[in-house]
Parts: sequence; C-alpha cells; structure tokens
Amino acid sequence: MYNVLVVKRTRIIDCLEKVGESVVVSGWVQVVRSHGKIAFLDLRDGSGTLQIGGFTESTVSAISALSSQDVVVVHGLVKKRDEKYVNSTLPTGIIELEAQEVTVLSKAGEMPFDMGGKQLHLELPTLLDHRTLSLRHPTVSAIFKIQETIVNSFKTTLKENAFTEIFVPTIVPTATEGGSEVFSIDYYGHKAYLGQSPQFYKQMMVPVFERVFTIAHAYRAEPSVTTRHLSEYVSLDVEMGFIDSFGDLMDMVEKILRNMFVAVKNNNQNELNALKKDILVLGEKPFPRIKMREAQEIILKRTAHDHTTEPDLDPSDEKEICQWALEEYGVPFVFITHYPTKKRPFYTMPDPLDPEYTLGFDLLGIQEEWVTGGQRINDYDMLVEKIKERGNKPEQFEMYLQAFKYGMPSEGGFAMGLERITKDMLGLSNIREASLFPRDMERVDERFSSR
Amino acid sequence: MYNVLVVKRTRIIDCLEKVGESVVVSGWVQVVRSHGKIAFLDLRDGSGTLQIGGFTESTVSAISALSSQDVVVVHGLVKKRDEKYVNSTLPTGIIELEAQEVTVLSKAGEMPFDMGGKQLHLELPTLLDHRTLSLRHPTVSAIFKIQETIVNSFKTTLKENAFTEIFVPTIVPTATEGGSEVFSIDYYGHKAYLGQSPQFYKQMMVPVFERVFTIAHAYRAEPSVTTRHLSEYVSLDVEMGFIDSFGDLMDMVEKILRNMFVAVKNNNQNELNALKKDILVLGEKPFPRIKMREAQEIILKRTAHDHTTEPDLDPSDEKEICQWALEEYGVPFVFITHYPTKKRPFYTMPDPLDPEYTLGFDLLGIQEEWVTGGQRINDYDMLVEKIKERGNKPEQFEMYLQAFKYGMPSEGGFAMGLERITKDMLGLSNIREASLFPRDMERVDERFSSR
Repeated sequence: MYNVLVVKRTRIIDCLEKVGESVVVSGWVQVVRSHGKIAFLDLRDGSGTLQIGGFTESTVSAISALSSQDVVVVHGLVKKRDEKYVNSTLPTGIIELEAQEVTVLSKAGEMPFDMGGKQLHLELPTLLDHRTLSLRHPTVSAIFKIQETIVNSFKTTLKENAFTEIFVPTIVPTATEGGSEVFSIDYYGHKAYLGQSPQFYKQMMVPVFERVFTIAHAYRAEPSVTTRHLSEYVSLDVEMGFIDSFGDLMDMVEKILRNMFVAVKNNNQNELNALKKDILVLGEKPFPRIKMREAQEIILKRTAHDHTTEPDLDPSDEKEICQWALEEYGVPFVFITHYPTKKRPFYTMPDPLDPEYTLGFDLLGIQEEWVTGGQRINDYDMLVEKIKERGNKPEQFEMYLQAFKYGMPSEGGFAMGLERITKDMLGLSNIREASLFPRDMERVDERFSSR
Repeated sequence: MYNVLVVKRTRIIDCLEKVGESVVVSGWVQVVRSHGKIAFLDLRDGSGTLQIGGFTESTVSAISALSSQDVVVVHGLVKKRDEKYVNSTLPTGIIELEAQEVTVLSKAGEMPFDMGGKQLHLELPTLLDHRTLSLRHPTVSAIFKIQETIVNSFKTTLKENAFTEIFVPTIVPTATEGGSEVFSIDYYGHKAYLGQSPQFYKQMMVPVFERVFTIAHAYRAEPSVTTRHLSEYVSLDVEMGFIDSFGDLMDMVEKILRNMFVAVKNNNQNELNALKKDILVLGEKPFPRIKMREAQEIILKRTAHDHTTEPDLDPSDEKEICQWALEEYGVPFVFITHYPTKKRPFYTMPDPLDPEYTLGFDLLGIQEEWVTGGQRINDYDMLVEKIKERGNKPEQFEMYLQAFKYGMPSEGGFAMGLERITKDMLGLSNIREASLFPRDMERVDERFSSR
C-alpha cells in the first residue's frame, strides 16, 4: 500500500493553491454520490469541504463503499472544475480532487439520522442527544465559528480601548447578589456557591486596572425551561472607572456591538451562507436612549395598552419598543434607562435627580434584552446602607466593600450573555442551539428523563 | 471651583505626548512626599504612574493632605523634568505634572499596611485577606498584566495554527475522569459535578473543528494545601486531530511556550522591572525529549539515587532532570515521555511497541511540571475496553464515546495551568500569588478560620 502518511497532508482550503499538483487530504466523509462508473465524495476537514471524484474502477469502488463520517485519507490530483460545474456556494467550488487512492482511517458506525443533506432537520432533543454528531454538520458548526468571532471582536474592541482582561473565580462564598436561585457546592465541608455573575470581582478590579473585562462562566439555578435561559452560560462582562456619566457606558456598548456585527459580516460569510442568514448592517445610526416611563408612554400611544404604572417592561412591551426604534431610528436596538430602583440590584446608582429610578439600563435589541448595565454606587457608606435596606449583612460583603472603603471613583459596567447574543444575532429559535453543551434543569449532556 | 469634569481627562501614559500642555489627570494616590514648601504625589491610573508636584501654597497644602489610595483629579501643566531628575525606572520618568488644582473624588480609609513602598512586604495571608488593596500595588498587579500577555500569546499562537476556540461547560454529569477528588453540586435535585478538566469536551470537538483550544475553569477538590495547587484554576487546553505522531503535540507545546516567553519579554518590560524579574530567553534551542526510564538512568548516574524501578518521577527527580537539560541542552525544559500506562488516564494511547508505557508526556520546566499531554486512544473498541479495565461503566461515557463511534482520526492534546505557568515564569514562591482570588481548602475569599 502507498504509505500516505509519509506525504505531508494538505488542508482542504489550501488545495485552492495546488491546482495541477498531487496532494494528500484527510477528513470526514460528508456525503457520497455513486453514479455507476463515477463516484463523488464530499470530504470535510477543519478548514472546509472538498469534492473528490473517483473515475477509475478502484477509486469508484473505494468511494462507493464509504459512509457518512468515515475518516479517510485521499491521495489525488487537484483540478480546476469546468466552468459549468463550479459550485459558487462552496469556498473550494472551483476545484475538485481526482482521487488516486482512498484509505479508511476510522470507520464510522451507522448514523442515527441523515447527515448528508444541506440542512439538518432534527428536533432539538435529538440534536442535543447526539451533540458530537450534529455539530459535525456545517450548518451547526457554523454557529460556533460565528460565536468565536463574537468573542474575538468583544476582546479586540476592549483591548483597543485600554481594558485589561481578568480571570475571576466561579466558586463564591455567598449567594446574596440577586434574586435568582443559586447552585450550592459542598466545599471541603463548607457551603459555597457558583457565582451568578462576575459582578463583584470586576468591580473590585476597577481600583487596580481602572478598566477591565472578563469572559466568565455564570450560573442560574432558575427552575424553569425557556427558550432564552441556560443554567450555565458565558458572560461577557465589562467594568470601567472614571466615567463622566452612565452615557459613557452606553457609548461603549454601542461600540462593542457595532464592531461585532461588522466582524461577523467580514469573517463569517461562509458560515452565514451555510446557515442561510444575513447579518444586520448597523451603519452609523445611533441607538435611541429613552427612560422606561417614556417607553411605556410610547407603547400606550402605539398599542393602547396602558402599562405606564408597571415597574418593568414585559416581553410584548420589549418587542413593541424595538419595533418603534426600527421605525423611528432605523435600528432595532434601544437603550431603556431609569428602571425603578427597587427592581435593580442593590449596587445600582439611583438617579440623584429622581432616586426612585436608577442610572441603569438595558439594551433591548431585536425583541429582547441583549445587555444590562448601569452606573454603580461608588460611595462606601451609601453602599453599606443599600445592603442593609435589602435585608443583607455588610459583613457578608467584607472583601467587596474593601474596594469602596479605600478609594473608588465613579464607575459602572455592563454584561451580555454570549449564547443570547449568538442566538439573537442569527435569529435562532432556542438559546440551546448557541451552546455547545447546554445545561438546563432537564439536561447535563444526557437528559435526566432518559437515565 | 474649577469644574474639572468638563475638561477631557488625559490618561497618565498619554501625558508623555502633552509636554507644555494643560491636562486633567485622575487616579489613585500612590505615595505623598511633603517637603515644606514643595510636595510631591505619585498618581496611578490604569495606564501608569505619574509624579505630580505642588509648588504653590494651595497645591502643597492640598497634596500634603492626601493619603494613599485617595481618588483625586488634578489639573496641571505637563513639564519635562531636568535631566538630573529623570527617573529611568518609570515609563513617565522624563516628565512631571505641575499641579494647579487638586480635588479629592473619593477619600480612602486608613490603610491596614503601608502601600507607598517600592515593594510590598506582606505575608501571604495578609496579601490575600486584603486582595482588593494589595492588588493596587504595582508589584502585585504586574503579575496579572503578565498573565494577560500569557493568555493572549497562547490564543494568538493557536489561531495562527488553525485552531478554533471553544467554550465548554464546567458542570458535568459524572466524576470519572481521574483520581482527584471532585466537587459535587446539587443540580435541581440531581447530583452533578464541577469538571476536573475540559478533556472530554475538547476531544469531542476534534471531529467538528479538527483543532481546538479552550480557556477553561477546572476544579480539584484535593484535600491538601501546597504551594502549587489550587482548588479552582484556569486550564489552557489544546486538542488536535490528524497527528502523525505524538511528536506533533510536543512541537506545538514548544511553539506555544517559545512565543509566550517572547511575548512577555516584548510587552511587559515595565512589569518585569516592577517585579525585578528577568524573563528567560529561550532562543531556538530545542527542548530535549526522553523517556521516563531514560530520565531515571540519567538521575542514577548523576546522583546515585536509584529510582529506576519507580513508576513516576518524584519532585527531586524533576528538579534534577531539569538541571540536566539546562547543562546538556542549554534550556531548563525537558519532555519526559512514556510514563507507565497504569499511571496515566484511561484515554492515553499505549505505545504499540511497548504497551506498558504510553505515548503521553509531561513537559518539566524550571523544576516542575508545566504541561501534560499525550496521544489519545481514538479507536472506539479499545477505548471501551480501557474504560472497563479501570472498573468504570461505558454507559457513563455515552456522549463522549459517540465521538469515537462515528469516525475519529489519530488525535492528541495537552493542557497547562495558567496560574502554574505564571508562577514558574516569574519565579513566584506560591501559586496563590498568580491567582486574583485563589481558592483552596482554607479559603474562598475569606479564610474559613476567620469566620
């Protein structure tokens, strides 16, 4: 047998540069098409997909014997396709490989579903039960190549703006930040918890680095199953000191999101094609910023639904006000500021002109919340008072409070969930599609009900 | 009062470009030096430290009234220092700011220890008990600016080599990977665990992306306190498919580490100066690669200690063999390969020529383990057999095994602990110094003993 392994492997995408040359490629069989005297194989590796043709008795027979997901190595000749056979939807669509030898490295078991189609039509539980298989389909892996771009763009924008990346723990001593349920851990005989957010830690780093961000794991033990919540998610968190006003925070949010949309558009055209999705072009249009009470007035005028005394926007309000922003400002994003103080975390700065409302904001986009943030209380005494008002003990916040006791400037920040943003940017119907291995109350990899 | 906030703030490092101009700077008071008719203040912001001089009655009095960590805003004039007053250890050492107005934004409480010295001489428990304060000292924050460079360099090298970044969960269904103790969680009435590593998930992504890396949180509930272990740490994990041999993995480790050392050298000279540390220059010298049994023979010859029948190297062996590498190859790094199969995880590929030993490796560097890795078993049946041999049930690994059932090429990978690498690169004496908020059996932020 020709020893293919002594010849250096060529990545599929690099075959474009090797027309007329002999190469060795290897990867996973995506689909096989046998037509008697000729046979074709779509081969996928980490860089892309390539059509391979068998035109001799031995290669036709070897290709015809292959099944989806077999791992093979193919020795062959890179050829330009005839004009009429060019596949413009495939990055390698102008070439194909004429197989000379096909060797199976790892034979795949029989597929539980068809992996060969352009789309993968699976119900969500099946998609997740066979995650390591479904992810091999280009329309599923595309989501995570785009997610990688989202994270890179987030980091790049922040680094360009003098932020330091920090790494903070997920095991925390107290479960006192907010209303959501928390997971508890047996920690060497003590009780500890999984952090609901990196909030306290990023604030504590403001006097150290002034501007910080972190890509953190966050946990919510909410006992409900929705299409937009996960029990474990990746939180993109930002905190910045010396803000002049909480408008500085919204400016930074806008900058981050604008860059993200452009980055996905520029880097992921192949993935967007596979998903048959377009990415929004935001341009330079500013996102409107309105108070929650103003939003309620607008909604009243538009829908005749009077929610003007409600302490929050409900999902239908959020959709309506995004629609308003699109019609009035040409962007489906709107910052809602000045939520009631009682509805926001204890550390949120009340508006000095109207302390019943906060200098906090949510960015609503394309129907739901994308980002939440606000200016924080940076005065030690005020913060202690707010902790007490909520019925908590300042002693439980000792290390957090140290940061404020020893000199803290005006500061604020915001957070966005990576899976939520991925879902909404791509118009996915369920947040689980945007998590490699989603965790919820019914599943940790396997469904509890199937155990 | 002059309203300083209407004038745009200048970052300290940018004052270098503003000689002769009026600026507004703000930050934290590092140290105050009063000399009667003149007074000096070192001010720190996120970009650096600046000497500010008070030469009028009002500014001298304002500066003299300041304490360490007060947050202030200073309006003043940027001046070049006289040649004889240039401070070459400070990036802004050629300039100073002549204060015109000094305003306190946030008054700091009294310091529990002196923050004004060039070095911060604190016992580790004190350093950690006041983490939000100790981190403000340039010699402490420097560690984490370098850590940021280490992570960036890791990512950059991998992206340049066609790896995809993935995000994997920390909550896992089983506690069966290795021998270390695990933390258990109450997960909606089910038992779940904190992952000891992202091992299984990164392997499962090989058939999806071929080459992946992840910056993951990993947890070890080991009931001991050492200078080199944490209960929660950041794991830099890599996995790659289609390797020709496990030498490909070691090549990649070398590339990553070489680039890391260069990146720190190039990006963190100020931080290295603050820490009074030099960074190793590795050059192009290859790291030697020897089998564990060969290492034991070398140790026998050098020390007369006969460990040639031991199943592992002990810490004194590790130091000795690193010393040997330095003397013989000019680098304090050495790959030790072929540890006994019984001592490595079940998924490690045995050497086909000598199955009692594995195609696994550790990179020992400057006295201890930096990286651990190896080629994995990619054959489904062999993997199932190995799981059974260790007394585990294949059903517990169902989703993991799916990845191998449906076509898996030769593959392998490796992992390194971020805090460990930071510690060893900088010669820190305790790994806790390289974690913003270290977790161990005695501490989750606060010491349990002090509760």
